[in-house]
Amino acid sequence: MKAVVLLSGGLDSTTCLGIAKDEGYTCYPLTFEYGQRHSKEIACAKKIVSYYDLNDKYKIISLDFFKLFANNSLINKEIMPNTSGLSKGIPNTYVPARNLIFLSIAAGYAKNINADNLFLGVSAVDYSGYPDCRKEFIASFMQTVQLALPTKLTIKAPLVDLSKSQTISLGLKLKVPYHLTTSCYFGAKKACGKCDSCILRLKGFKDLGLKDPISYS
Amino acid sequence: MKAVVLLSGGLDSTTCLGIAKDEGYTCYPLTFEYGQRHSKEIACAKKIVSYYDLNDKYKIISLDFFKLFANNSLINKEIMPNTSGLSKGIPNTYVPARNLIFLSIAAGYAKNINADNLFLGVSAVDYSGYPDCRKEFIASFMQTVQLALPTKLTIKAPLVDLSKSQTISLGLKLKVPYHLTTSCYFGAKKACGKCDSCILRLKGFKDLGLKDPISYS
Repeated sequence: MKAVVLLSGGLDSTTCLGIAKDEGYTCYPLTFEYGQRHSKEIACAKKIVSYYDLNDKYKIISLDFFKLFANNSLINKEIMPNTSGLSKGIPNTYVPARNLIFLSIAAGYAKNINADNLFLGVSAVDYSGYPDCRKEFIASFMQTVQLALPTKLTIKAPLVDLSKSQTISLGLKLKVPYHLTTSCYFGAKKACGKCDSCILRLKGFKDLGLKDPISYS
Repeated sequence: MKAVVLLSGGLDSTTCLGIAKDEGYTCYPLTFEYGQRHSKEIACAKKIVSYYDLNDKYKIISLDFFKLFANNSLINKEIMPNTSGLSKGIPNTYVPARNLIFLSIAAGYAKNINADNLFLGVSAVDYSGYPDCRKEFIASFMQTVQLALPTKLTIKAPLVDLSKSQTISLGLKLKVPYHLTTSCYFGAKKACGKCDSCILRLKGFKDLGLKDPISYS
């Protein structure tokens, strides 16, 4: 059975790929290039795809139009991501409707290659306050996408109820190559350890009494 | 109040722009270039934008990735649209999740320019059998998009319950420039009059006892 797996190069989506492989799916990883602050994510995604020997099934889709959506620090390099600890509310890394757009394109792509499954690494627990990572959003999307398509597409979000440490714990059992992943919003050679994404990742490993295998500055 | 209006250059979306203007919205027309069979749609959309004096508020977004979605006659020039009359089922012009993708990107764009309204010319009555033109899809999308966004976006689909002739009747009252629109799947200088889209359009004018102002071969 074919499955499209959204792969950002981060910890969650890589775990998701590990799960899909483990469940026996023929995996078609899909990465979006949308003018994110740094290209390290895509370099990591490529290494992960090679690790899983899926180069011939891999697509990177460029979404140039996101440069129109520049009121956020993930795309607009003049706005800096927050590094003063997690706060309530929607962070300035939020790109309007980003996940909705990614999932919609991935659904269309899946149907075009006759894949009946789509894996998403979205987590509703240790998430960064984006509205389109919430469980209600995912549930509603599943309903909408089914109405948009002529045949069934099963959306699998196996991490949706897991905390970061539960995700890591599961991934380690599946030998997910966390040393190849990246999470930092800044994308320098070494992770900053201070942005929201680094904080959540570090806490995940710490809660398990483990050391994150990537380097921090 | 700002509104993004999806504009394909066709009869429905142009009527929708006429309605949004008439309701007093500051309109931001948005056209997607997705490798459709012909460029006539975009040429028409540009003329319609000029007619409404909205050139400075107009965007064309190119979606190159649709070339990956080539199992359909709207993008793949080796497959021909049907010209043997309307039939049941999903026609070969269906592009998987196309409307879902368009609406998702339009929603993100709307929020980025601080528009709280999004107009769609979708009709659930005289439609061509695409799953993502159905009323249930539009209703479900409205719910999903709201969950994806931090603030309210009102989706307006004023034609959803109108037949083609009702749409034309309304548009004529609003002086919608139907002579500038195109509907034919083939996009030649003159419309073919035989594809599903031409058939629906011609019937719409005929039901009103009117002559379509565009030329047919």
